[in-house]
Amino acid sequence: MKHKIVVEPPGQNARTIIDTMSRNCYNSTFVYPLVIEDGEGCYIKDVDGNVYLDFTSNIGSSPLGYKHPDVMDVLKEYSNTGVHKIAGQDFYCREHAELAERLLSIVPKGFKAFLINSGAEAVENAIKIAYRRMGALPGVSCINAFHGRTLGALTFTFSKPVQKSNFPELPVKRIKFCSSDDDPEIDAVENLLKENKVAFIITEIVQGEGGYNVASKRFIKMLREYTSKYGVPLIIDEVQSGMGRTGRWWAFEHYGVEPDIMAVAKALQVGATLYRRELDPGQQGVLSSTWGGGSRIDLAVGAKIIDVIRRDNLLSNAERIGGIILKALRDMADDSNGKVVDVRGIGLMIGVEFISKEVRDSFIINAFKHGLLLLPAGIKVIRVIPPLIIREDEVQEGVELMYEVLKVI
Amino acid sequence: MKHKIVVEPPGQNARTIIDTMSRNCYNSTFVYPLVIEDGEGCYIKDVDGNVYLDFTSNIGSSPLGYKHPDVMDVLKEYSNTGVHKIAGQDFYCREHAELAERLLSIVPKGFKAFLINSGAEAVENAIKIAYRRMGALPGVSCINAFHGRTLGALTFTFSKPVQKSNFPELPVKRIKFCSSDDDPEIDAVENLLKENKVAFIITEIVQGEGGYNVASKRFIKMLREYTSKYGVPLIIDEVQSGMGRTGRWWAFEHYGVEPDIMAVAKALQVGATLYRRELDPGQQGVLSSTWGGGSRIDLAVGAKIIDVIRRDNLLSNAERIGGIILKALRDMADDSNGKVVDVRGIGLMIGVEFISKEVRDSFIINAFKHGLLLLPAGIKVIRVIPPLIIREDEVQEGVELMYEVLKVI
Ligand SMILES: Cc1ncc(COP(=O)(O)O)c(C=O)c1O
Ligand SMILES: Cc1ncc(COP(=O)(O)O)c(C=O)c1O
Repeated sequence: MKHKIVVEPPGQNARTIIDTMSRNCYNSTFVYPLVIEDGEGCYIKDVDGNVYLDFTSNIGSSPLGYKHPDVMDVLKEYSNTGVHKIAGQDFYCREHAELAERLLSIVPKGFKAFLINSGAEAVENAIKIAYRRMGALPGVSCINAFHGRTLGALTFTFSKPVQKSNFPELPVKRIKFCSSDDDPEIDAVENLLKENKVAFIITEIVQGEGGYNVASKRFIKMLREYTSKYGVPLIIDEVQSGMGRTGRWWAFEHYGVEPDIMAVAKALQVGATLYRRELDPGQQGVLSSTWGGGSRIDLAVGAKIIDVIRRDNLLSNAERIGGIILKALRDMADDSNGKVVDVRGIGLMIGVEFISKEVRDSFIINAFKHGLLLLPAGIKVIRVIPPLIIREDEVQEGVELMYEVLKVI
Repeated sequence: MKHKIVVEPPGQNARTIIDTMSRNCYNSTFVYPLVIEDGEGCYIKDVDGNVYLDFTSNIGSSPLGYKHPDVMDVLKEYSNTGVHKIAGQDFYCREHAELAERLLSIVPKGFKAFLINSGAEAVENAIKIAYRRMGALPGVSCINAFHGRTLGALTFTFSKPVQKSNFPELPVKRIKFCSSDDDPEIDAVENLLKENKVAFIITEIVQGEGGYNVASKRFIKMLREYTSKYGVPLIIDEVQSGMGRTGRWWAFEHYGVEPDIMAVAKALQVGATLYRRELDPGQQGVLSSTWGGGSRIDLAVGAKIIDVIRRDNLLSNAERIGGIILKALRDMADDSNGKVVDVRGIGLMIGVEFISKEVRDSFIINAFKHGLLLLPAGIKVIRVIPPLIIREDEVQEGVELMYEVLKVI
């Protein structure tokens, strides 16, 4: 397959649907007028027949791309099931048990799982597990963090003001997310823990929505050391960076640390909170949800995704292709007349920083018109997060499109 | 079909799955060892071949029962789609637009929709819309209310202590949920609004998890009158009571009032926050979520459910059969030697209150062993919430089973 723009988007079909949406729905975070119809491999087709090369994976939700034969088998199987969505914390199903077991095979030893409906809910349950143990103390998170939009998770989010303005929050303390090993703020964390009782520290390893900022090795190592020293649970949010995106199952594996609690979603198809079994709330009924662990199609697809990533060595692919993209984009930055100021990332989680928000926004819109899907992060960054199945020739195609886009902005 | 217990549950297959779950997962709110495999009509089949008559609808998530031909058509259609789950607030899909349009056809005129992943998230977004307008003031909710488990929604939940203990909360004030028109606490609400600036009042019409308590007519009417008078948004949580459960689309229709904001989920297959368009946050990016509005199978099934409820007059069925069950269960209460102390509800949302928690719990477990699925609510109540498609002969079968159960407890 290849990208192909047959009608300038939005075409007639897209226009009709977007008009209905604009009349009836809150205009959330829609970036450009893409109305998705179908897809195959790393390509998405819109409702007017345009084909786009996808460097977004639907914000990481489609690690195997589209119409993957193994996923299609699951959809086919469940299209004959009379009960595809159950009250998953009141009744059991095989898919819940199987996905939990798969997950536990790829996280640190001695963890337990709680399945839920979204990344935000995975974070809510991560912090609930910490509060349950520590009491209703302040939680600690990083500047530019993004942990989701429900009011608990949102308290610990410090990305864009529009996401928080006028909303009340829980007790919270902020620390700097340090990208450099020399940052003196790393050691300020110890003072914070010495002087305050807190319920947890939560952080990403590569900040997603906040701008694709990669944590310094020493920052993460010291967070682990200080939290252990002061008996505070360390929560690592792998909602965006997890499930193989960085070339390992979890981004924290690059840092030689293990969290006490972790949050997963996106590529997993459902939300999951994983935690050291000593932190189990014990008593029944502390955590629950109607559908958590009960969307049987999503659970079965999630388990299949883990199997396929393992079987097809997609972790190595993410690492290898990630290296190729990183190099190509750094070359592009050199050729960009200063429009691109930084390229950074781990594996297939790569951010490209532009000189300004305006140039970045124009880059995204023009890429879309050329047949390449990209999403923004932070103020002036784009995310390059193609499906983990991506091949070199597809990278080539995407990079060529980006060069073309650079010419017209 | 008919219920049929072929092996005392849990059978061997169920046992294996539940063992895996117990080892690996948090033991949430599982009530009895039911491992769901398949279903048809109002019947659920477990992994050992037992068939149960379902008076739970998976806590209301299965209004059309199981293997409904119209739902199966949707699953079949989507089993050929290469992209079944998208970033639904960043990219568009036809199913999002269609479900929103369907929803707007059954809520008060002049509303807009925001689609999301669960009931808790529908409530989180309802209160965010209110805060956005009113500022970070305290919110008001009712004693025994249940609005979900994320920390925002949970702040306004006052059902069981285990659901909240050790968790921090947002600013909140409580009022009594009044089931009697004569309750003097109804008028206390005006004083509260006179003396305090608040961001919203949120309530259910029939409290679900809190014990199937039906609001008094005057209570709801006065909540509407006072909130209008003091310019405070009234949020009605229809997550459990909505989508035809009470014989109308929304429980508030029985009360002759309209909310400013409403929360929907369960029977809809996805979460939805609906609000008067004057309350729209305006600016982009205030509300969002990765998958909200993007689980295309769930969206398409949700739209189909609305169509089928309308086409097959399931609102009338809920009202008519609800009346039949209410009468039958009141007769049973009279025959129960004081074990059943109250039967109440609207349409197919019926609560049966027992003399004690022990008797209630024993009733549920024994019903399960006899082939009838029931769920608890509150301290000593069971919910009777069969699929909206239920027929008289199935009601008969269920009531006979309950009589048998009464004999053995
Ligand atoms: C790191 C991180 N945590 C949490 C979330 C919230 O996930 P969701 O949108 O599924 O609620 C996101 C979503 O972008 C994320 O990137
Ligand atoms: C009235 C009400 N609101 C909100 C919720 C939360 O919904 P969910 O479990 O889908 O998060 C529930 C769930 O039982 C409910 O009954």
